[in-house]
Formats: sequence, structure tokens, C-alpha cells
Amino acid sequence: MHHSFHPPQRTLMGPGPSDVPPRVLAALAQPTIGHLDPCFIELMDAIKKQLQYVFQTDNPLTLPISAPGSAGMEACFVNLVSPGDTVIVCQNGVFGGRMKENVERCGATAVMVEDAWGKPVDVDKVAAAFSAHPQASLLAFVHAETSTGARSDAAALCALARENRALSIVDSVTGLAGIPVAVDAWGADAVYSGTQKCLSCVPGISPVTFSPRAVERILSRSHKVQSWFLDMQLVMAYWDGDSKRAYHHTAPVNAMYALHESLLMVEEEGLAAGHARHRRNHEALVAGLGAIGLEMAVAPEHRLPQLNAVCIPEGVDDASVRSTLLAEFDLEIGAGLGALAGKTWRIGLMGHSSRPRNVFTCLSALESILSRQGAISVAPGSAITAARSTYGADDQAH
Amino acid sequence: MHHSFHPPQRTLMGPGPSDVPPRVLAALAQPTIGHLDPCFIELMDAIKKQLQYVFQTDNPLTLPISAPGSAGMEACFVNLVSPGDTVIVCQNGVFGGRMKENVERCGATAVMVEDAWGKPVDVDKVAAAFSAHPQASLLAFVHAETSTGARSDAAALCALARENRALSIVDSVTGLAGIPVAVDAWGADAVYSGTQKCLSCVPGISPVTFSPRAVERILSRSHKVQSWFLDMQLVMAYWDGDSKRAYHHTAPVNAMYALHESLLMVEEEGLAAGHARHRRNHEALVAGLGAIGLEMAVAPEHRLPQLNAVCIPEGVDDASVRSTLLAEFDLEIGAGLGALAGKTWRIGLMGHSSRPRNVFTCLSALESILSRQGAISVAPGSAITAARSTYGADDQAH
Repeated sequence: MHHSFHPPQRTLMGPGPSDVPPRVLAALAQPTIGHLDPCFIELMDAIKKQLQYVFQTDNPLTLPISAPGSAGMEACFVNLVSPGDTVIVCQNGVFGGRMKENVERCGATAVMVEDAWGKPVDVDKVAAAFSAHPQASLLAFVHAETSTGARSDAAALCALARENRALSIVDSVTGLAGIPVAVDAWGADAVYSGTQKCLSCVPGISPVTFSPRAVERILSRSHKVQSWFLDMQLVMAYWDGDSKRAYHHTAPVNAMYALHESLLMVEEEGLAAGHARHRRNHEALVAGLGAIGLEMAVAPEHRLPQLNAVCIPEGVDDASVRSTLLAEFDLEIGAGLGALAGKTWRIGLMGHSSRPRNVFTCLSALESILSRQGAISVAPGSAITAARSTYGADDQAH
Repeated sequence: MHHSFHPPQRTLMGPGPSDVPPRVLAALAQPTIGHLDPCFIELMDAIKKQLQYVFQTDNPLTLPISAPGSAGMEACFVNLVSPGDTVIVCQNGVFGGRMKENVERCGATAVMVEDAWGKPVDVDKVAAAFSAHPQASLLAFVHAETSTGARSDAAALCALARENRALSIVDSVTGLAGIPVAVDAWGADAVYSGTQKCLSCVPGISPVTFSPRAVERILSRSHKVQSWFLDMQLVMAYWDGDSKRAYHHTAPVNAMYALHESLLMVEEEGLAAGHARHRRNHEALVAGLGAIGLEMAVAPEHRLPQLNAVCIPEGVDDASVRSTLLAEFDLEIGAGLGALAGKTWRIGLMGHSSRPRNVFTCLSALESILSRQGAISVAPGSAITAARSTYGADDQAH
């Protein structure tokens, strides 16, 4: 390839990345400055405060890891797990399995609590696991399962960990800013997320937060963290505003410009208003899908409004529908993962992608393609009509 | 902070990041697409080929790690080192010390070969270390020491590793595209770099390449790689063009746009022409500094043209000069690191920063500040006059 790359302009309604607003892209492209520049240090401090707001926490150790969400996950495990530890890991989708991998690669034992994909984590099973393994020092679970669209009860699970004198690690990659993530109210000890979901920033960065209890465990480790890059004692010395910054790595400066701008947009809207918006667009999508006979894979009370797992109707070819959406509408939706591959689509309404315009575009496109394939038989416009009826008068304008 | 962040427009002449060309920033800000989008897969394939060119290698396993250079370093170590291994680590600056940390965190023993900061690695000492530790399975060294500006003889060191049936890990974060990095000609086994130095891309990504011998060692491991995020068996399944992509993590899509554009600029200029440009601007800088009495910290034959360590004259306050450069000229140069803190400045002429305009700006600013501080006494314009005289007629135009 000897020419510049120019991507198509997609509408991103998969499991992430979500649509990135033009003002975030504009922030991203501002001139690079040095990562030790006094102006950059100010930006780091601002981002820490912004992240405390979206995580709803006062944790001083709240910052963006300079790598994707899977590195954020690893940062939580390698810092809080020591060889020989027992960790209770809940699995109800892809990411619980990745947590197990992390635990085992730390030389610890993972006690698995398994639930069906698409179901939330069963709190009673976790309580039973603590009874059977009282030595467990950690509980790890996924708040918002990106592979299934199911939400688990983070408050109850974090409380259970505390009752059992264990710390909690919470994956809220897909949750943050789409549904309430109340780190302090939950009493969560380590929570990681990603920039490319409901924050609608470019992919590549992982916001994390550690409670004072988690910091205490990190500082009292007798065994060095196995990752130098993700060693939070080193990372915190780089990000700490109170003392002289210790050089650790070169921060991804431009990605930080973008993250700051996307967090500013969350602040401007307000977290509660953002959650309500995610809910309204979700309800419209579900109504529209229902009008053309498509069913949701997750029970209503456990659904993530920002990630909608939809059952693929019998006889419909998963891949051909998705490639037609891409070819005709420049519209990306997600395939099923793991146990749900070929059985579900995952329609993301995350961050800037959570807009009536995206709901309407997706419903209209799906209705058109499935009708042409003979998979459904409805009056043209059925999906949008049903979706529109769920919005209030104010929403129509957006 | 409740407003957008707008960085100052700096001229970046520190140890990185270097100035990012406007066309790379423009590429960065293009609309985000999905990381599994067919167009993104094409971009990934293109970037792999581009990286093979800049690394001068046919290694199929050549790709960008989705995190900064220190994660690229860690990727090399965690994949090639197993617990109980003996690794010979050369240290002649900051980054050899970081390699030692990596080796030890892998449960292996680091045999240190130390040289003074600012000197190259002594090949004879390394040969002696292999004689004393014939079981050593790896040799790790820094080709281009970012902390001192010294270049080591990568070809000789890689050959020595092969003679001793060891693999080699080479840090060329600052070397790549500024001086020849000939991975196949050297017979190097694992080389990592960074995007924010002579590639003049935004910081945050680490290009790496692994030889077939290194891949063989990775595939024959009996002990799982301790990092899930950096496990090359998983990463290569995500980046491999020959089979179905296995989801691993979400690639930093926009950073890949920028990386592609910066690599395209390297291709357009040609590696050899780029190396010559780095050399010419270095010679001009050295001549100019010499004219105002500033001495280089590294002997001429070992100097990196892209990173110039300059001795701070007796009685001159390091920090005040650098902060005046920043305040008056928006010009960033680097402080000394570690053993050289307060003793040297590091002036980067990397990638897009390696331009006569930057050389002149820096010389003029330093001459002005040091004259005003009474540290030097020269006729105004001395530095630039000396620098200009080193350029040929063609260069004056740039």
C-alpha cells in the first residue's frame, strides 16, 4: 500500500467502538506536546478528577491505563493477586473466562462460579462459593457482560466480597457512563473500563480505579507485580499529582486529549441524564425490534440498555445480514461471541451511538433486509413506527 | 476543569515524543471504524508490511503492540523468558535497568554486563559473560539508549548471541528509522520500538518483530506467558492475515490510522534518505553547539544523530534553561535521566523534528539564553552560522 488510508464513514452499533463525536476527534488531532510538559501534567490531573466523577468515587488512585480494556483488566489482577491466592471468578460470558486466565497466569487458583450466558451472576452461588472457600481473597465478576448484554448486581456482589473479607474486581468496560457505576456506594475495590464504549472516545485506553483497601494490599505485597508496565506502584508515581512525577512510560498524549473531551461531554450532559438517554433509546429499539418479530436474548430486568443481544430468527444467515448492513448502510452491528456465535446479534447503543437517529437507521435497515430475505412479513415502516411511539415529544427533536 | 483542553504548540526536541506532522494528525482524526471491519483488517495487513520495511525484515510476526514502548519491551521478555532462565542483560543507561526488572519479574536470573552511561555496550564483556554463563538463553541490550544518546553495535551483539545459541532482544525504541535497523541482516530475534520517536507518530504504540527462531521458542513454551494481554500466541491470532481473526482486544483504531500515515512518510522518503537527513541535521547541531562552547557527552563514533546528549556547562542551571526555552520559544528539550540528571540535556532530532528549522531554532534559543545568563560570550548568530556551514546547498531550502 503506497497511499494514505481513508476509512469509510460507518455508523457504529456493535459492541464497541461506538461512534466518536466530531469534537472528540478534533481534540485528538491537536498538536502533540511532551508527556512531561507542565500543560500535560495539568491535563492528567483534570482527567483524574473527571474519572472520579464518572466512576462516582473519591478514590485517589483513579486514572487511565495507557492500553486497552484488557490491559486494564490485567492491571487489576496482577496488582491484587499473589501466587497461591484463591480467587472466586464469576463467569456468565466471554469476559469471566478471561478473568480466569488472568488469575491462573498470576499463579493463583480460580474458583469458578458459572451461570448461563445471557443470565446475570447468581449471588447465591457466589455466597456458596465463599462458604466453600473461606480463604478466597478476591471476588471477580463482570458488571456489564459485553458478550451477552446482561447486567449483574454489582452492589450485592461487592457487599458479599466485603462480608467475606475479600476484595472485589469489577469489569465495567461496557457499563461505565451507560448505566450507574457507583464505585464508592458499591464498596468496589478495583474497577476497570474502556474508552470505546459509552464514553465514545477512541479505543485504546482503560480507565481504572482502586479503593484505599486495594491500595493497601498493593503496598503490602511481598512479591513484585509480575508486569512492570502495569505495576500500579510505578504507574501511580507517574500519575500522582502530590509529588514529583517519576518517569514510567510515555503517555499516549493525543489519546488523553480525546479522553478529556469525551469525559467533558459526559459532565456536560450529567451522568443521570446520560443514563436516562441510554434507557430511552434502548426502549425504542426493543419496541421496534418487537414490531418486526425479533426477540431479545436477555430477560428485561437484566438487560443492558447500551448493548442489546437480539436472537437471530431461525433460518436467517447471520453473516449475510451483517455484511449487507455494512455494504448498504455503512452500519456495523456485532456478531455473537463464543457460545452465542451465530445465535445473536449485538446492537450497541453506547455513548454518542445512543441516538434516535441510530435507532431509526438500524431498525429501518434490518426491516428492509429481513423483508427482502423473506424472513419477516410486515408493513414497511412498522419498526420505526413502534420505536417512535416510545419517545416523548422532547426526544423526537434529537 | 469544565472546558476543552487546548495544548500549546510546542517544538518537540526532547527524547520523544517528536513533532507529529500535520498529515499524521489529520489521519489520526478520521472517523473511527470497528476493529473487525473488513477495511480495518486491510489496514492491519498494510501496517504489517510497512513495519517489515522499516525493520528491514521478512519476519511474518511483525506488528504494532497496542501500548507504549515499555509494553513492547515487556512483550519481548514475557514471551521469550521462562522461569529459571538465565538472561544476559547489558546496561549502559536507564533502559538496561528496566530490562533487568523484566527478566526478574519473569522468574529468571539476569546476569548484568555494565558499561558507563554514555558508552556503548562492550562486546568483549558480553563475550566473557557468555563464557561464564554458557546456559544463558537470551541476550538483551539497547541499540539506541534514549537516556544517553549512545549507539551500541547491534550486529556484533546479535551475532554473539547466535554463536552462543542464545536469542537476542533488542531495544530500538529510539533507533528505528533514525539509524539503520537491519533486523534480518543482524539476525536479531526480537526487536521493539516506539511510534513517538523517529517515526514521528503519536505516542502509545510499540512496533515489534520476532524472528522464526523466536516464534519457535514461543510455540514450544511449556509455561503459559504470564501476561494475557501481551501473549504473542493470542496477539498473533488477532493480527494474522492467513486465518480467521481471533478477537483478542480492541485495537486502538485511530492510532493505527496515524501509524500507517507515518510509516507511509518513511516509505516516501526512503529509509536511506531518512538516515542521511538525520545525520546532516545532527552534524549541523553539533557544529552550532560547538561554536558556543557546548560539548557533547558521547564520543563521535557512538553518537545517535537523533538524540544528542549535551554537557550542561558548569554553573548553568539545568531547569531554568529548559523552562525558559519552553516559556519563550515553546521549545522542549529533554533533561538528563538517572545518573545524567542535571549533567546533560538531551536534544532530539527525531523524525519530523529532524529539520534545519528546528536546528536553527534550538541553537538560536540556547545562544540567547546562555548569553543572557552570562554563561557564554559569543557574537550573536555564532551558533547558526556554524550550523549553516555544514549543510549543502540543497539543505538550505528545507
